[in-house]
Amino acid sequence: MSKRPLILVTNDDGITALGIRSLVEVAREFGEVIVVAPNTPQSAKSNALTISEPLRLYKSDIFEGIESYECSGTPVDCVKLAKSVVCKDRTIDLCVSGINHGSNASINIVYSGTMSAAMEAAMTGIKAIGFSLCDFSHQADFSAAQHFVRLMIAFALENPMEKCKLLNVNIPKLPLADIKGIKTCRQANAYWTENFLENKDPHGRTYYWLTGQFINHEPDAEDTDEFALANGYVSLVPCSFDLTSQQSLEYYRNQSFNFTT
Amino acid sequence: MSKRPLILVTNDDGITALGIRSLVEVAREFGEVIVVAPNTPQSAKSNALTISEPLRLYKSDIFEGIESYECSGTPVDCVKLAKSVVCKDRTIDLCVSGINHGSNASINIVYSGTMSAAMEAAMTGIKAIGFSLCDFSHQADFSAAQHFVRLMIAFALENPMEKCKLLNVNIPKLPLADIKGIKTCRQANAYWTENFLENKDPHGRTYYWLTGQFINHEPDAEDTDEFALANGYVSLVPCSFDLTSQQSLEYYRNQSFNFTT
Repeated sequence: MSKRPLILVTNDDGITALGIRSLVEVAREFGEVIVVAPNTPQSAKSNALTISEPLRLYKSDIFEGIESYECSGTPVDCVKLAKSVVCKDRTIDLCVSGINHGSNASINIVYSGTMSAAMEAAMTGIKAIGFSLCDFSHQADFSAAQHFVRLMIAFALENPMEKCKLLNVNIPKLPLADIKGIKTCRQANAYWTENFLENKDPHGRTYYWLTGQFINHEPDAEDTDEFALANGYVSLVPCSFDLTSQQSLEYYRNQSFNFTT
Repeated sequence: MSKRPLILVTNDDGITALGIRSLVEVAREFGEVIVVAPNTPQSAKSNALTISEPLRLYKSDIFEGIESYECSGTPVDCVKLAKSVVCKDRTIDLCVSGINHGSNASINIVYSGTMSAAMEAAMTGIKAIGFSLCDFSHQADFSAAQHFVRLMIAFALENPMEKCKLLNVNIPKLPLADIKGIKTCRQANAYWTENFLENKDPHGRTYYWLTGQFINHEPDAEDTDEFALANGYVSLVPCSFDLTSQQSLEYYRNQSFNFTT
């Protein structure tokens, strides 16, 4: 009998979230599953690392029959502990992160703990997929999302994924019958403007609470993830962690910076 | 008299760090400076946002004659508060972040609070430069770094910076006379492997403390930032926040994901 693949599952909404439960349900169909996930919500923690304090890692029995751990750190801390401590003598074949409660399309990727956890795995050559459902609700319906998670895990285990080991998969908030398919896209050029709620605490001191408004610079660009999602498709963006602006290299190489010591 | 440019200064080492003091000293030569920086060290906080708790913003008199604020949040929170609250009715002409105590070359950019703060400014069209000195010491000598900060601020204020509004500038730990110049580079393909210190706390419970080892996949690639720094140059990488792996789009577009509902 050939060895079943080892699949690491993590997320940023925390180990008790419905989204990770939905992801574990599908992942276990394909192989041996190990869960290492945060013990508190870690949304918008990006690639943050915990370097100035110790981390805790405790066994959890939250998923019956699945080796699971809850961790006091960030999503990236979870993946690092999974690789070096939990799976020390084992090879992780695939890392799946999510299913996130809320979109990680376009610029959301740079803030997302879900995608950063997947990126941390991909950096060291582990195939990795972040899954997100465009529904922030705690009680979101993940059944349609699970269908696409199943397709993508099957794909990732059976195919080389070439140089790109990192996929950002977002699923629209629609019943399965209304989803038109999966579309490979580029990241839309978008950003969040911030609106701060300003108020006084019980001691009369001012505080600010971040809210934001999503601005899509190119709502009509048909090759973007935002366009795919708005038109009933699952968006798939192959991702890199090389932030070099290739198109700007020539411009800067041609500058003289008047170096004099 | 023409209006002096408005320069926002921030960092991730915190408002009391020597690095930000060195940056303010140079920035004030060029225009009106506003400082909004974290009130605690925020290294390795990446693009993390504070969304689940309120933020505090207090006036500081740490820099004589400079309008300064300390903030309870992350570097990205600082930039958002600077744009929306502190500079509400003013236009920021340039955002400079750092000078970081330690390298942010190659893969360090994805973990760096210094670079994430600059990225947050660049996303909304503000020219932005992150500066880092390859010396982690609290009492590092920033005098050579200041020379290059001066050159780059002058460049950024006088030139359009084209589409790329975000620069990652790293300065080697060398006396000014030994630095050969500024080199425009791409981000080296590198990563950190984690080593966790495992120990027991005073209550007998296990904790893990993250340390790491830097692995450069391409130490001989002469067009990378790591190579430039290792050979006595200041590295300049024009950066993007589009994480799409352009070279992988075609491969994924050609897959059939067997969509069936």
